[in-house]
Amino acid sequence: MPVFILRLSCPDQMGVVASISQGLVELDANILQNAEFSDPATVTFCMRTRFEVDVFEASVLEDALRPRATALGATFGVRREDQPRRALLLVSRYDHCLLDLLYRRNSGEFGLDIPLVVSNHPDLRDVALRNGVDFEYLPVTRDTKPQAESRLLELIDKHQIDFVVLARYMQIISAELCGRLEGRAINIHHSFLPGFKGAKPYHQAWERGVKLIGATAHYVTAELDEGPIISQDVAPVTHRDTAESMVVKGRDVERLVLSRAVKAQAEDRIFLLGHRTVVFD
Amino acid sequence: MPVFILRLSCPDQMGVVASISQGLVELDANILQNAEFSDPATVTFCMRTRFEVDVFEASVLEDALRPRATALGATFGVRREDQPRRALLLVSRYDHCLLDLLYRRNSGEFGLDIPLVVSNHPDLRDVALRNGVDFEYLPVTRDTKPQAESRLLELIDKHQIDFVVLARYMQIISAELCGRLEGRAINIHHSFLPGFKGAKPYHQAWERGVKLIGATAHYVTAELDEGPIISQDVAPVTHRDTAESMVVKGRDVERLVLSRAVKAQAEDRIFLLGHRTVVFD
Amino acid sequence: MPVFILRLSCPDQMGVVASISQGLVELDANILQNAEFSDPATVTFCMRTRFEVDVFEASVLEDALRPRATALGATFGVRREDQPRRALLLVSRYDHCLLDLLYRRNSGEFGLDIPLVVSNHPDLRDVALRNGVDFEYLPVTRDTKPQAESRLLELIDKHQIDFVVLARYMQIISAELCGRLEGRAINIHHSFLPGFKGAKPYHQAWERGVKLIGATAHYVTAELDEGPIISQDVAPVTHRDTAESMVVKGRDVERLVLSRAVKAQAEDRIFLLGHRTVVFD
Amino acid sequence: MPVFILRLSCPDQMGVVASISQGLVELDANILQNAEFSDPATVTFCMRTRFEVDVFEASVLEDALRPRATALGATFGVRREDQPRRALLLVSRYDHCLLDLLYRRNSGEFGLDIPLVVSNHPDLRDVALRNGVDFEYLPVTRDTKPQAESRLLELIDKHQIDFVVLARYMQIISAELCGRLEGRAINIHHSFLPGFKGAKPYHQAWERGVKLIGATAHYVTAELDEGPIISQDVAPVTHRDTAESMVVKGRDVERLVLSRAVKAQAEDRIFLLGHRTVVFD
Repeated sequence: MPVFILRLSCPDQMGVVASISQGLVELDANILQNAEFSDPATVTFCMRTRFEVDVFEASVLEDALRPRATALGATFGVRREDQPRRALLLVSRYDHCLLDLLYRRNSGEFGLDIPLVVSNHPDLRDVALRNGVDFEYLPVTRDTKPQAESRLLELIDKHQIDFVVLARYMQIISAELCGRLEGRAINIHHSFLPGFKGAKPYHQAWERGVKLIGATAHYVTAELDEGPIISQDVAPVTHRDTAESMVVKGRDVERLVLSRAVKAQAEDRIFLLGHRTVVFD
Repeated sequence: MPVFILRLSCPDQMGVVASISQGLVELDANILQNAEFSDPATVTFCMRTRFEVDVFEASVLEDALRPRATALGATFGVRREDQPRRALLLVSRYDHCLLDLLYRRNSGEFGLDIPLVVSNHPDLRDVALRNGVDFEYLPVTRDTKPQAESRLLELIDKHQIDFVVLARYMQIISAELCGRLEGRAINIHHSFLPGFKGAKPYHQAWERGVKLIGATAHYVTAELDEGPIISQDVAPVTHRDTAESMVVKGRDVERLVLSRAVKAQAEDRIFLLGHRTVVFD
Repeated sequence: MPVFILRLSCPDQMGVVASISQGLVELDANILQNAEFSDPATVTFCMRTRFEVDVFEASVLEDALRPRATALGATFGVRREDQPRRALLLVSRYDHCLLDLLYRRNSGEFGLDIPLVVSNHPDLRDVALRNGVDFEYLPVTRDTKPQAESRLLELIDKHQIDFVVLARYMQIISAELCGRLEGRAINIHHSFLPGFKGAKPYHQAWERGVKLIGATAHYVTAELDEGPIISQDVAPVTHRDTAESMVVKGRDVERLVLSRAVKAQAEDRIFLLGHRTVVFD
Repeated sequence: MPVFILRLSCPDQMGVVASISQGLVELDANILQNAEFSDPATVTFCMRTRFEVDVFEASVLEDALRPRATALGATFGVRREDQPRRALLLVSRYDHCLLDLLYRRNSGEFGLDIPLVVSNHPDLRDVALRNGVDFEYLPVTRDTKPQAESRLLELIDKHQIDFVVLARYMQIISAELCGRLEGRAINIHHSFLPGFKGAKPYHQAWERGVKLIGATAHYVTAELDEGPIISQDVAPVTHRDTAESMVVKGRDVERLVLSRAVKAQAEDRIFLLGHRTVVFD
């Protein structure tokens, strides 16, 4: 039987679970997983339900559940699990995050289509092509940034991209594009935010003499390195480490943290509540 | 408004969430947290729901929900959150886990009443009394074990104990008592099980030359150190460590792991499914 | 045979190890542990050697090694291991770090004498006295800070204190006192520095939506929360956490991180090189 | 100036550091790093020294230091750091450890030559060749194992291999070959040893209901999964994990743990003392 994922968020109120689960019973759907969260800060209820039902099209389920969702004032959507999300990867020259994401996709670690890699450098073309992914070289200068970002939006549209992953992409995205990609663009920053924003965070970390280095996956916003955090992790360092050895150790953390965030996004597990995220296990 | 915790488990089937959440709607209850799990191995559905409702007695809620639970073939119970679980602590001579649990209770880290500490040694009497907890010295020899265990059951009964915590208790419990305390007695073993069962696990760990030591909180069963695992953690060691320094480092892990398991049990977050546990966050 | 600890630092140069180890051979000393580090940034060599020798007084060894140290331009010192360092603890109202340090001292986890607890609140007097430690209530207002700090220096002098531990002490220390205690005063800050300096770091962390909280032990300097870092660690949090639950989870991290730093200081394992620390295992 | 690495182990005795460091002074060598350990259990002293000296050949240094080493009863060797160790990788069908090691070698993360990959399956030939590494398909059946192992020894000899890495190699090596490769063959086992030896450790882990899974890098010995441990790490799992999802999560741990062990071996940081290892940072 096909498996579907329902995402729903609405103002917190009595009866949400009852209404939606009753709706699923009426569809003869069997709940496989259900995660819920009532956020006291924003008074918002979030729900992700994975269920199986003898229905072919997600739109049929959405139509059936829409009256209930409307009554709750809810935003919601249903996706067939075997119709994976589609991600566009933005990269520059560093290949470790790109290789890692492609490996995980290839090995079936997460259901995710990656139709296209876009880069402001041509270096990683072969990596993309060898993995069966299209590659577009999209150089960016101060003058051409508007055109480059327009082209990127075209590509997002053309390839029906659900979300964008900045896998160590070394260009700053305009506030306007950030706005258009809200909740749909994930960046990996190579520090434990809010420490060491901006350029060369490992060098900043070495200067400060920290005993742990970290990485942070977050949604892109117009304020640099201030976006809502999805995942973070750290690794120990000692006085023997240099900024260069931190760069090397940090790669392992960056890969893991970014892949966790991308997996969560691909599986519709993240809800954006103001400046904070709910990430269901 | 009073807050209640509902625990329910039943054969996995369609409509459980709908039925129970509908029952809560009919009681005018507002769900604050809801955790669910369908276990494919045992085909069992587990649910823990925290809700507020303008009702005084848990028994009223149980009566109202019983027809639905019965129809589902479910085991269930409701507890008022401000009527905490009651734990009896069993100790011997090591005080680190006892002190840690008492500190966490005193500081309100988990809602848990600890009316009594029982020990086969008199050493920790003052620790208990200073923390406002009764202490009973219950020596155990091979000959007196049956009487001692009878006395323990009496005390469990008399003090209306919900569960027992073996906080580094150095006596083996009889198979019969293990059976009577199934799912209600938590032990801390000072190794990463299944490695290093039995006596002197840190010395075994040193002999084997491991690079991490660990601790495991598990339900007590008749087979020594084979009970269902609730929580585990580890700490790094190096070639510089001796068995003695592992004992010292291990104390920190033991404390943390046991306190996590006790907190989960006190908050009704654990479901025992055969030999495995579900532990809701 | 008595065991001694030698600490030495000097401009990095050829022959330091040869000279000092030859000096130890001439004293018939047997090296038990030896840790060395050549810091490229400051071109400084640091060495900590633990050895046994049939000598009673550390001063005899210092006299014997002084010509070699002088020739190297080194700062050095020798301490008999069984004559422990002496620490003064500064606290306010939170007791978790104080209790933890006293427990570790009592259980012999590190060799450290704690003759005195000083606090700007009277609350923790009983905790100190029960552990056999003197307690002085030293209230601090804006007006009395200079006198209070003078009194503190008197106490440090009178009790022959080697270093001061700010175990969640909630007063800011004057720049002058910071200067006088350089490398001899350890603070625990309840965040992963450099993130969330200043007041209420867990509340800041919650606002920022981080997925890990942390704690940092560092030397006190005149710039608040900017001192050289000795130890750091983190714990995971989720969207379910509130600032209050982060405070609770953070206590476990604070305790561990501070105790590691105090142990390292008590065992003469830390070298302060500019704004960074070398911490030998 | 060329940089060299000296490894030395000998019966623990007074004057080892003095003798060797004096020998280095006489060669005008400048010590960059020095790590030492006196093992109480085996009464063995281990030392690894990294130094720079205006000498071309390691053999010149070995000749100069030999009289001192002989006097100490020491086993020792000197290697020029820019003449890397040579490893042969043994694989079967799983590619994650192979890809990871090749990536780290390619990116200069550790100085290591990998001239050859040998496999009992042809599947990973392209991976090897694409990374500029020779590949030999060496099928093994019960009957051909002796010839296959002879061929392997030939290849080790021909390619001047320093050590062998079993990067998820799914064949058991004969006791005789284990003996010949003592301290020179590193295996990754996909469990936290000593738990879950043998086949399908993640399935064993799932059955046992552990809350952490792990991986262990160890030297190969004739007793399966009983060899001296070099590196271990763990990752959290929950009741939601299946054996299959543990396999996926475990890959990340396996990669990291094996790469740490290979890096340590490539940098001459490991000493084998009986059944235990010293691993210098």
